[in-house]
Amino acid sequence: MVTCAIIGASGYSGAELMRLLAPRMDVRITRVIARSSAGERVDAIYPSLAGRVDLRFEAFEPALLEGVDVAFVALPSGEAMAVVPEVQGRVGRVIDLGGDFRLLSAAQYEQYYRKPHTAPSLLGTAVYGLPELNKDQIRQSRFVANPGCYPTCAILGLLPALTSGIVAPGGIVINALSGVSGAGRTSAVDYSYTELHGNVRAYKIGNHQHIPEIQSVLAGASGQDVALSFIPHLIPTARGIYATLHADLKQKTTVEDLVALYDRYYAEAPFVRVKRTIPQMSSVVYTNYCDIGLSIEPHTNKLVVISTIDNLVKGAAGQAIQNMNLMLGIPETTSL
Amino acid sequence: MVTCAIIGASGYSGAELMRLLAPRMDVRITRVIARSSAGERVDAIYPSLAGRVDLRFEAFEPALLEGVDVAFVALPSGEAMAVVPEVQGRVGRVIDLGGDFRLLSAAQYEQYYRKPHTAPSLLGTAVYGLPELNKDQIRQSRFVANPGCYPTCAILGLLPALTSGIVAPGGIVINALSGVSGAGRTSAVDYSYTELHGNVRAYKIGNHQHIPEIQSVLAGASGQDVALSFIPHLIPTARGIYATLHADLKQKTTVEDLVALYDRYYAEAPFVRVKRTIPQMSSVVYTNYCDIGLSIEPHTNKLVVISTIDNLVKGAAGQAIQNMNLMLGIPETTSL
Amino acid sequence: MVTCAIIGASGYSGAELMRLLAPRMDVRITRVIARSSAGERVDAIYPSLAGRVDLRFEAFEPALLEGVDVAFVALPSGEAMAVVPEVQGRVGRVIDLGGDFRLLSAAQYEQYYRKPHTAPSLLGTAVYGLPELNKDQIRQSRFVANPGCYPTCAILGLLPALTSGIVAPGGIVINALSGVSGAGRTSAVDYSYTELHGNVRAYKIGNHQHIPEIQSVLAGASGQDVALSFIPHLIPTARGIYATLHADLKQKTTVEDLVALYDRYYAEAPFVRVKRTIPQMSSVVYTNYCDIGLSIEPHTNKLVVISTIDNLVKGAAGQAIQNMNLMLGIPETTSL
Amino acid sequence: MVTCAIIGASGYSGAELMRLLAPRMDVRITRVIARSSAGERVDAIYPSLAGRVDLRFEAFEPALLEGVDVAFVALPSGEAMAVVPEVQGRVGRVIDLGGDFRLLSAAQYEQYYRKPHTAPSLLGTAVYGLPELNKDQIRQSRFVANPGCYPTCAILGLLPALTSGIVAPGGIVINALSGVSGAGRTSAVDYSYTELHGNVRAYKIGNHQHIPEIQSVLAGASGQDVALSFIPHLIPTARGIYATLHADLKQKTTVEDLVALYDRYYAEAPFVRVKRTIPQMSSVVYTNYCDIGLSIEPHTNKLVVISTIDNLVKGAAGQAIQNMNLMLGIPETTSL
Repeated sequence: MVTCAIIGASGYSGAELMRLLAPRMDVRITRVIARSSAGERVDAIYPSLAGRVDLRFEAFEPALLEGVDVAFVALPSGEAMAVVPEVQGRVGRVIDLGGDFRLLSAAQYEQYYRKPHTAPSLLGTAVYGLPELNKDQIRQSRFVANPGCYPTCAILGLLPALTSGIVAPGGIVINALSGVSGAGRTSAVDYSYTELHGNVRAYKIGNHQHIPEIQSVLAGASGQDVALSFIPHLIPTARGIYATLHADLKQKTTVEDLVALYDRYYAEAPFVRVKRTIPQMSSVVYTNYCDIGLSIEPHTNKLVVISTIDNLVKGAAGQAIQNMNLMLGIPETTSL
Repeated sequence: MVTCAIIGASGYSGAELMRLLAPRMDVRITRVIARSSAGERVDAIYPSLAGRVDLRFEAFEPALLEGVDVAFVALPSGEAMAVVPEVQGRVGRVIDLGGDFRLLSAAQYEQYYRKPHTAPSLLGTAVYGLPELNKDQIRQSRFVANPGCYPTCAILGLLPALTSGIVAPGGIVINALSGVSGAGRTSAVDYSYTELHGNVRAYKIGNHQHIPEIQSVLAGASGQDVALSFIPHLIPTARGIYATLHADLKQKTTVEDLVALYDRYYAEAPFVRVKRTIPQMSSVVYTNYCDIGLSIEPHTNKLVVISTIDNLVKGAAGQAIQNMNLMLGIPETTSL
Repeated sequence: MVTCAIIGASGYSGAELMRLLAPRMDVRITRVIARSSAGERVDAIYPSLAGRVDLRFEAFEPALLEGVDVAFVALPSGEAMAVVPEVQGRVGRVIDLGGDFRLLSAAQYEQYYRKPHTAPSLLGTAVYGLPELNKDQIRQSRFVANPGCYPTCAILGLLPALTSGIVAPGGIVINALSGVSGAGRTSAVDYSYTELHGNVRAYKIGNHQHIPEIQSVLAGASGQDVALSFIPHLIPTARGIYATLHADLKQKTTVEDLVALYDRYYAEAPFVRVKRTIPQMSSVVYTNYCDIGLSIEPHTNKLVVISTIDNLVKGAAGQAIQNMNLMLGIPETTSL
Repeated sequence: MVTCAIIGASGYSGAELMRLLAPRMDVRITRVIARSSAGERVDAIYPSLAGRVDLRFEAFEPALLEGVDVAFVALPSGEAMAVVPEVQGRVGRVIDLGGDFRLLSAAQYEQYYRKPHTAPSLLGTAVYGLPELNKDQIRQSRFVANPGCYPTCAILGLLPALTSGIVAPGGIVINALSGVSGAGRTSAVDYSYTELHGNVRAYKIGNHQHIPEIQSVLAGASGQDVALSFIPHLIPTARGIYATLHADLKQKTTVEDLVALYDRYYAEAPFVRVKRTIPQMSSVVYTNYCDIGLSIEPHTNKLVVISTIDNLVKGAAGQAIQNMNLMLGIPETTSL
């Protein structure tokens, strides 16, 4: 029996971890840590988990985690860097779902997250937990930085094209649409139902913290500088990310060749589905799949990739469990 | 030129008053009072009003209202009773959109609003501003209590049946569905987009403050005690109320006779549309109409009335303007 | 390995059966029958099932079903009565998700379904597949009529109150709200996105085919005539039913006593969650749970029960699988 | 009194024309032509228009239009080119809301609309009805081709940047999101509520008929070839278009300078609101405004313009009425 703790369990990623782990016979959640809800029953905050998770939230105490096999850290960015050092010696594996350990540079972190990094010595010690890119390293790792939701979606859509060299590494444009759960469990008026019903708004143009994550992972994987625009938008639904990716094809090619290229690249990736039709977001919601559709815009000779995931599953909790499965030698798709 | 002030202008009813009054040539909004937003431009909070309302919110100061023709009070319940006494001497007419002056009894107010009434001497001095019931009194009034959103919808659906005596005054059941704007401009997690998307929840079962309002208006109009259940629900949309009303027919009748009865009752009511088909909520959203559909459930011989309005228009700002038109001798439908 | 066939597999209930059965190791779907889509791949119609169901739809041919362990019939009402007689000899068990075998009387069927029943000799031969009521009979049955979505929700909410005799069996009012998937996979303009966004409409007032089903099951279980109003409404979401049930308490009681009564009644029902707070629909969506909340309206002494399910899971495919589990002696909650 | 006829009145653009024209004192709708609904009352199809439009749909007959001042043609693309020649001699002005007369080349029409143009002699005889670009020509015209919804939104967002020469005319990327009403009043399963709730899908990648319209208008206005990508998406709401436009700035500049440039360009455009903050779609829904927000993405030096309109108002019926006002010498903003 694998024992798990979730630190930051009262947010949406934490709740999704509970939802996905609860039915497993081989895993037991032993601790759910959430400062603001300490003492409350999980099903008081998440009635959907009544009958499935019979636990109370607890305040963070390093000793509570002693001997736990896997600690999922689902804290807001900026909080994990204080917690992870206290946890690492006590638990078997750490999977951080936030942004604190995805970048390699403390300066870049500070620029985009707008706060100094307080555990810079840990930067670079986590494996970037995108199984479709780093499966072997994840298997051997004790510390995984789970990718961001937008980066998961955008990187999976571009990896085969960039690593094969069929598109130019500059001038890439990423437009991404996210359901509102991406903003977390929040009380701001701007995220209230009435404000967002029938509404769309772009945000953080030019300074979203996922820009350096996408850029550096794609650059690292393809061995070249990558320059891209990234514009995130909120759309009126709860779950899902839909990214439309534009890149200049270096030569004329066909959709068939593109599909073949992507199929080869993702031959060992059970959660990537490559399509020659245009994907829709509803196909992946509540699943760990990433659906990727390939098109060529004839009058511009641009590759247009549609990539779509559930931000809370493949973009957060599902991918974290996929990583846990790999780290523990359990079949990758278990419970997903 | 009629001058207007809106007190409590930064909430949704206040914004809707601005939206509906801004295009009028015969009316000018001179003051928009909102404590929490004092100093801010209206279009900073409501970008939809850019180019239409060129004002800044101001903190409440009785002197600001001196000489204004019509003061709309759109404050949360409990705040108007402090403000109205200070306003009444300074302005021509007062229309209160909240609940502070709709009930006649301070004790009943305290029971349902859970706070003592601090201006009990004013109770009973306002005309209940339902033009379909009290048009003549409204015309002569200087102080109108604008009906609540649920009461407007429910009362209009039941008035002809109860006043004509065709249904029993007891055992009435009202199930009402409301868009989330009915909860006001709020930052509570429970009203966040993610929580309410794809969701429904009933609330305040047995103790909603609109119960005594509906009961007492129907009782007063029909000259008998009225007993009713009222269960409000939030549904995943922004605007609109949809009320399903069940009452026991005393005798067998036909839908044709019911339609004739309602048509007669509402012959002078330009915003009530009586139908023998089942209304849909989208027909009234962004309008001042109340659509009423009449059915008989054959196996129970119950009258089933569907009544639907836009909670922010006929249920608040639109009805307030309808009342203003009547009070000022302007045609009732102007700008609506 | 249990083999299953789905007849009428291209509708939403069929797709939901595939979604829920696909991950099972102990069950294999061998045939998916759908006349209109015969020859097409399942994932061409339901891209969400790509990588999960690797089958093509086939036209109905009785011989295709020879030797199958469980046949799920997910046809529109009126079509199953032609198909079931041809299937019964060939397969181990039949679970019909439609309405053709839920009523006992051909006359009542004709009145509410507006077509004659063409297999009246089979009426009464199916067990009504509500496990919370008929678990033992289901275990021994070879032919189950899976309850309707509204009936599941309404009956579960009323059974303990009616069978214990604490409420009057007459004058019950049921208002139920359904997501649009309840209308099936349909191309009618009235069910188009634009028409239903931000909209609500009641429908089939007084003549919905689930009225006799609810009435007769509750009457049978409680041993008395039951009279009820039932008004269904479409609301702007895809999944979920939310029923608000009103019944007259015969005596004064407390919510605590009601909760105790319901808890006892559902002690062996793993999918019913009894609550003293008001349930919300989102808690049950994508699950097989029925959440039941109990309130007393003090001024009317009415019991107000909120009951909520996912119409495609507990209201259709999930309950069908729960029935299959019971019929086959598999633990009831397997894969649900 | 101006008399109007609407040909193709039963679609959403036709209904929106009725909604916007009905309250006018200076305009009377005399004919509403709609083949498929001929004989039916307008409010039978659009119950929201009950009490506002008291007309029946009629089948098309050229003689019916004799002497009408303004004919709005709101037919599906491909149908107007048969009707306009029959109408032109009989009415004062023609405003075509479809795509048949927006392009100058029959070959281009055939390529993108996938049917031959049957009235090529009329190509080029209509003024392109974008008042912000062609106000004087519209004033003198008797035949206006009302712009498409996406083109209105995209062109308004790019005109000042391209005509001033601050951005490169190549490599422009347009991602546009549309509410589902953009697909018209349709019965296809793909546009049903259940399919589109919580869903997003791109469509017509590389071959949408608005590509040549956007390109040729921008090229004509800026006197240079313009090359652009255009990817339209359906999002889960009913109304509104939200376009995110990316273009390469030729030099470093500031948002302040951009706002000043756009403000100058739109000094005489009462329906364009230029902002330095990011617009949201809800601000323009149910209005004739186009909100434009200007940003610079620092790491790419790209201009990012957000442009948003209501597809049925500024993108169709509202703009058509704006054009009518101009053609008739009525103040441009009347009733809008």
